[in-house]
Amino acid sequence: MKKEEYIVLAGKVEKEKLLKKILGEVFHRILKQISQGENPSLEIPARRKESIVYDEERDIILLKRILMKRDFLNMKNVRKFTQTVAIGATMTELLKRQIHAQLRDIFYNRAYLFETQSESDSIIEDIAAMMGVYRENLGVIASAKGVCVGEVKIRDRGDIIDCSRLGTGGWSITPLVDEVTFIDHKAEFALVIEKDAAFFRLVEDKFWRKHRCILVTGKGQADIATRRFVKRIREELGLPVYLLVDSDPYGFYIASVYKRGSIKMSFDSLRLSTKDAKLLGLLPSDLDKYKVPSYARLKMNEADLKRLMEIKNYPWFKDEKYQKEFEIMLRTKQKAELQALCSKNLTFLSDIYLPRKIKGEDWLS
Amino acid sequence: MKKEEYIVLAGKVEKEKLLKKILGEVFHRILKQISQGENPSLEIPARRKESIVYDEERDIILLKRILMKRDFLNMKNVRKFTQTVAIGATMTELLKRQIHAQLRDIFYNRAYLFETQSESDSIIEDIAAMMGVYRENLGVIASAKGVCVGEVKIRDRGDIIDCSRLGTGGWSITPLVDEVTFIDHKAEFALVIEKDAAFFRLVEDKFWRKHRCILVTGKGQADIATRRFVKRIREELGLPVYLLVDSDPYGFYIASVYKRGSIKMSFDSLRLSTKDAKLLGLLPSDLDKYKVPSYARLKMNEADLKRLMEIKNYPWFKDEKYQKEFEIMLRTKQKAELQALCSKNLTFLSDIYLPRKIKGEDWLS
Repeated sequence: MKKEEYIVLAGKVEKEKLLKKILGEVFHRILKQISQGENPSLEIPARRKESIVYDEERDIILLKRILMKRDFLNMKNVRKFTQTVAIGATMTELLKRQIHAQLRDIFYNRAYLFETQSESDSIIEDIAAMMGVYRENLGVIASAKGVCVGEVKIRDRGDIIDCSRLGTGGWSITPLVDEVTFIDHKAEFALVIEKDAAFFRLVEDKFWRKHRCILVTGKGQADIATRRFVKRIREELGLPVYLLVDSDPYGFYIASVYKRGSIKMSFDSLRLSTKDAKLLGLLPSDLDKYKVPSYARLKMNEADLKRLMEIKNYPWFKDEKYQKEFEIMLRTKQKAELQALCSKNLTFLSDIYLPRKIKGEDWLS
Repeated sequence: MKKEEYIVLAGKVEKEKLLKKILGEVFHRILKQISQGENPSLEIPARRKESIVYDEERDIILLKRILMKRDFLNMKNVRKFTQTVAIGATMTELLKRQIHAQLRDIFYNRAYLFETQSESDSIIEDIAAMMGVYRENLGVIASAKGVCVGEVKIRDRGDIIDCSRLGTGGWSITPLVDEVTFIDHKAEFALVIEKDAAFFRLVEDKFWRKHRCILVTGKGQADIATRRFVKRIREELGLPVYLLVDSDPYGFYIASVYKRGSIKMSFDSLRLSTKDAKLLGLLPSDLDKYKVPSYARLKMNEADLKRLMEIKNYPWFKDEKYQKEFEIMLRTKQKAELQALCSKNLTFLSDIYLPRKIKGEDWLS
């Protein structure tokens, strides 16, 4: 695989360099084209389904480098060309003022050019892919809903946040997660929990102190900041990462987004994916193994089964151990939430299930 | 108004007293009834629509004390009676072990008795109303999604959290909000923001430092912990509370839940409602006043207009100033999100709008 075949975004980029690149290269080129009587144009990487590939070797979802011309003197493109230039100007302002804006802020900032936010979101991703940098580098961030608690100290704009001293609340992960520094930790692993109810259970039981770990919840499908935060824990602190999700097709998908990236953000996979994170549970095979009573299991509906058949065919789930779990779901047509373990005992999750799973290395890689 | 006509829940109650009350009074009475060959029964406050009243004098939504008998030897009641006793036993365990569980945990803990969580939630509220205490006192909590940043220091289980030293993230408000103590503050007011995008804007602009305040976001419709947190800021720190929501019927309702309580939790209003909180904006009249361009305004749909007609008739919105704002919405059929202010300028909210609104005391009481 040649590197240039794929869009691989640069890591941290200095704001000044970026500003120079946007103003100097992109806008200057357009101005030059106009002054020479040419049709001004941009070259944007195509983010179609066909350009999204699963790189088996690296076990990651990537975006192929296929460039498309977006020009002004073209009825089909003029609207998008204009939108791209306008959003580029907003990004220039963000970079100059050294502030950040959310996707929806940008939509409103240029609302006269857009009908829906998904249009402006898409243009923002186009520009990030075109510039070969992350959206955040261009001053555009998404909401972060993750929370962190545990044996780690973080520096964020001069503040030192000790995540072991935040009471029964936690640190609300910043959307600017690449600007924080890990300054110290006493953890042996990180545990990422889909549901905040289970997260709170572990916080109140001080699981993180007893088992020396960092707890993170993404509160459902993880946002970008939370995924990047987990990836940085893995890479910079060298800690193993365990994932804890519901036993259903959505749980498997949520776990796989942490591990391999999402289809939508395929060009950003390398930075966001913790590919060797272990899926600890709740696994379909755990339901019998831990004798979860039948009344605490739920019947899968049509939508669940349809989703199951979809994910069963994803190439990154072809591993035999995953397929075995899918077969159990298909056979029993049962799913279960993390909280189903409360049917055993209100603290079964922290007292029995997690210690046994981790000690027994009972997970999916 | 006589006090005993309404369910008014006790404040902080010692766990041991509660345990004694549940075990000694409730369960013991049932056992006695059984041993005497009587039909065991409980008296539960009715939480029907008819018992929910708006107390004009106190400007708050309350629950009338109308007791209903729930007995065992009664085909209509036996199921609910059994459920109530079982959930009572789970609460006893929570109190004995001094731990907390979420609504869904409790549902699963007794899943063999329930078909849906709304059934078990309802029983939990019944018991809280019957015991005359808050759900949290019985060890049952709901997820908290609020975040706080600003000039306040909090003690939570021995940890001291300085909300002005949390970088660009924030303190994820604990579900056990009654267990924290305010130990110090340098704030002149609290600003409660519906949307976390606007919240982040103010965090990054260090609005809270410049204007000496506490920022809280409930991330949409506020959860109980966030509402209680805001109420405690008002009561214990004596700070004025300003609310910032979208300019639409839902925004008005979200603001009114902070101010007057929700219909669902009517028996809990006194503890959760910050009745003199000021609705700062975004008001329908602000759209013209601050020249929000038409392309940044949204057209109200049928559902919006229906909701508008509903809230327009709520007795707690009958104030002339509110009605005037509703009239503007009805006439223009326009709504707008907080972020619509980004159409003016990305930092218009923090630089212009908020300072001008607060200084000009331009709000609804």
